[in-house]
Amino acid sequence: MKKNVLIIGAGGVAQVVAHKCAQHNDILGDLHIASRTAAKCDAIIASVHEKNAMKVQGTFTAHAVDAMDTAAVAALIRQTGAQIVINVGSSFVNMTVLEACIETGVAYMDTAIHEDPKKICEAPPWYGNYEWQRREACKAAGVTAILGVGFDPGVVNAYVRLAEEEFLDTIESIDIVDINAGSHGRWFATNFDPEINFREFTGTVYSWQKGAWQTNKMFEVGKEWDLPVVGTQKAYLTGHDEVHSLSARYPGADVRFWMGFGDHYINVFTVLKNLGLLSEKPVKTAEGQEVIPLKVVKAVLPDPASLAPDYVGKTCIGDVIRGTKDGKPAEVFLYNVADHKEAYEEVGSQGISYTAGVPPVAAAILIAKGIWDVGHMANVEELPPRPFLELLGEMGLPNRVIDASGQDRPI
Amino acid sequence: MKKNVLIIGAGGVAQVVAHKCAQHNDILGDLHIASRTAAKCDAIIASVHEKNAMKVQGTFTAHAVDAMDTAAVAALIRQTGAQIVINVGSSFVNMTVLEACIETGVAYMDTAIHEDPKKICEAPPWYGNYEWQRREACKAAGVTAILGVGFDPGVVNAYVRLAEEEFLDTIESIDIVDINAGSHGRWFATNFDPEINFREFTGTVYSWQKGAWQTNKMFEVGKEWDLPVVGTQKAYLTGHDEVHSLSARYPGADVRFWMGFGDHYINVFTVLKNLGLLSEKPVKTAEGQEVIPLKVVKAVLPDPASLAPDYVGKTCIGDVIRGTKDGKPAEVFLYNVADHKEAYEEVGSQGISYTAGVPPVAAAILIAKGIWDVGHMANVEELPPRPFLELLGEMGLPNRVIDASGQDRPI
Repeated sequence: MKKNVLIIGAGGVAQVVAHKCAQHNDILGDLHIASRTAAKCDAIIASVHEKNAMKVQGTFTAHAVDAMDTAAVAALIRQTGAQIVINVGSSFVNMTVLEACIETGVAYMDTAIHEDPKKICEAPPWYGNYEWQRREACKAAGVTAILGVGFDPGVVNAYVRLAEEEFLDTIESIDIVDINAGSHGRWFATNFDPEINFREFTGTVYSWQKGAWQTNKMFEVGKEWDLPVVGTQKAYLTGHDEVHSLSARYPGADVRFWMGFGDHYINVFTVLKNLGLLSEKPVKTAEGQEVIPLKVVKAVLPDPASLAPDYVGKTCIGDVIRGTKDGKPAEVFLYNVADHKEAYEEVGSQGISYTAGVPPVAAAILIAKGIWDVGHMANVEELPPRPFLELLGEMGLPNRVIDASGQDRPI
Repeated sequence: MKKNVLIIGAGGVAQVVAHKCAQHNDILGDLHIASRTAAKCDAIIASVHEKNAMKVQGTFTAHAVDAMDTAAVAALIRQTGAQIVINVGSSFVNMTVLEACIETGVAYMDTAIHEDPKKICEAPPWYGNYEWQRREACKAAGVTAILGVGFDPGVVNAYVRLAEEEFLDTIESIDIVDINAGSHGRWFATNFDPEINFREFTGTVYSWQKGAWQTNKMFEVGKEWDLPVVGTQKAYLTGHDEVHSLSARYPGADVRFWMGFGDHYINVFTVLKNLGLLSEKPVKTAEGQEVIPLKVVKAVLPDPASLAPDYVGKTCIGDVIRGTKDGKPAEVFLYNVADHKEAYEEVGSQGISYTAGVPPVAAAILIAKGIWDVGHMANVEELPPRPFLELLGEMGLPNRVIDASGQDRPI
């Protein structure tokens, strides 16, 4: 039984995590949130109190910390007495925060793979480059470290494990499809930090097919998907964290990730990329000023957090999983539909932050209750899926399946 | 009889001016070229000598000068003994260089209207805002100042005057059409300084119709034109210098300027503009650096001078002039077709610089010979057109007319 949560980060996802932790502080205990700028944490705590989100009386305290500094994070863990750390800061801080958790013996969670700020779209094996190198250290310290426990990666990994346990006898292919059919009403905006958003799509696209890594260019392979609620949507083969961990568990299956993009997004992205404006390498202006173009693009784009109040429409994220059942070919689709406006009304963030922020809090509750407190490092597909998916349903992310017979029903 | 030429500027057009002056140095005398960076002038002079462009033995000397400093320009005029100044520097220096010419009593020429670096797309009357305010001063000093004597403005103004003198009895409309049907082979590039290029198209579009200034948005009014050599091309109503001076001389005529743009250019421009990347107002990055987005766009785009070696294809620039002849409606089209590769082989610049750079040298020769040395300020349509157009034909810019009977012939 662990309790007391330290949230690292103060962006849109951290906002959701904070609200959801508050809604379950009877289980989770004292709450803390820390980022480089304490004022951002104060604003999140203020929004929690505005919504009267604290289930029972308790503390929720803001802290300033440099999450790139392991010693500082470890000191904060000790100071707060947190036994569970939910890291939803920038992808650049995973390894330093994980190290602080190993040092202090507390549970660790994140929602995206570690990135080196100086490298873009590293080649697989992604988890192998960073997090998995600390597997033995976690085991030796008895530290529960759950990697990539947002929606994708995260819930979509649990879907595969559930299909393995309940719906299929063999798994031959896993296609994760992520569609945002919502609209923010701006001419163009990214749904999260433009610097991170564009980095995902500027390099080679990796997928796992025929037992090996395959490479494509971004927007080279597109496919229309006919999905519940959001209808027919075009998505493109994209590299994504969970392709790596799932291909490690299901090496005989094809594992592909598909991200939905409208023609407008692709056009803007293509123009910026081809002009060199998404580059992280400094250029020199005629006046001699050294500037990183991507940082200027970020500066002119709307702040993703500012989109939430006007965001309408729905997201649909799910797994098309093919294999066999009773010796016959079978296909299942496990999925969630979330609504931007409902998310904003509940926690002050749009639907994409909501789907990413609820799962780590569900995981924290499962750790607090001992169900997922496994004492080693794990990706989500290595953990029992049903308690997680059922808890998510209670917490606002209902999960459904279209089973092999075509019936659409709750999981 | 004036002689000795000082060229201000060291860009692509200055390169053409230098070569063409050298080819006529028997008439023009000593040649000088000055810009902020003397090394750029040295490179231009070196390319002149490489091509053995000097017609007779003579001097061609490079100088460094801050053209925004009237006293410095005046001192250089006195030092060089130049009696003719060809200003093909940035549009920001017109007024200071003009002032130096008035002060020293020498002839002045430029190829584009003065711009205040701090203002974008000023409202008409453009010449009235700056150059024409010095008309009286030129007259008093007996200074010949020929404004806008590139191709457009410049040659296209002479076309109208020639139509008035030789082809039509009345002029009811003047449509200047500028098509670059060439290809530089890059994904995207501007043909001259991106900062100046984009400035032209970020504001309101002004045209002179029904006896008054009319306003439109950029790319709002498009029209297909069927032209000699380059075929059917789409062009868009655009504000341009000569719309002002021609509407002052022909107030009863509609005067419109049409610039050809491909869909690709429009798309890139639209993305950059809508994102705010063409802004001259500084933005602050997340790291606190103040940056002017347009200067970063300029930094990532190809240097326009670098396009010349690979440029192929042709330009067609001309005037569709409608009115009456012998009491009947009549239409004439006066035009030039230039070839990018031929221009590069002759003077080391692409066709757009060539069409802009040859006319001021023709004008310099006409001033040297006394034909255009009028001793006051003039736009090109106020000067006798035939000597100018005939000289241009001899110098590499042949001019043709499709007359009211439909016959296509040399002017």
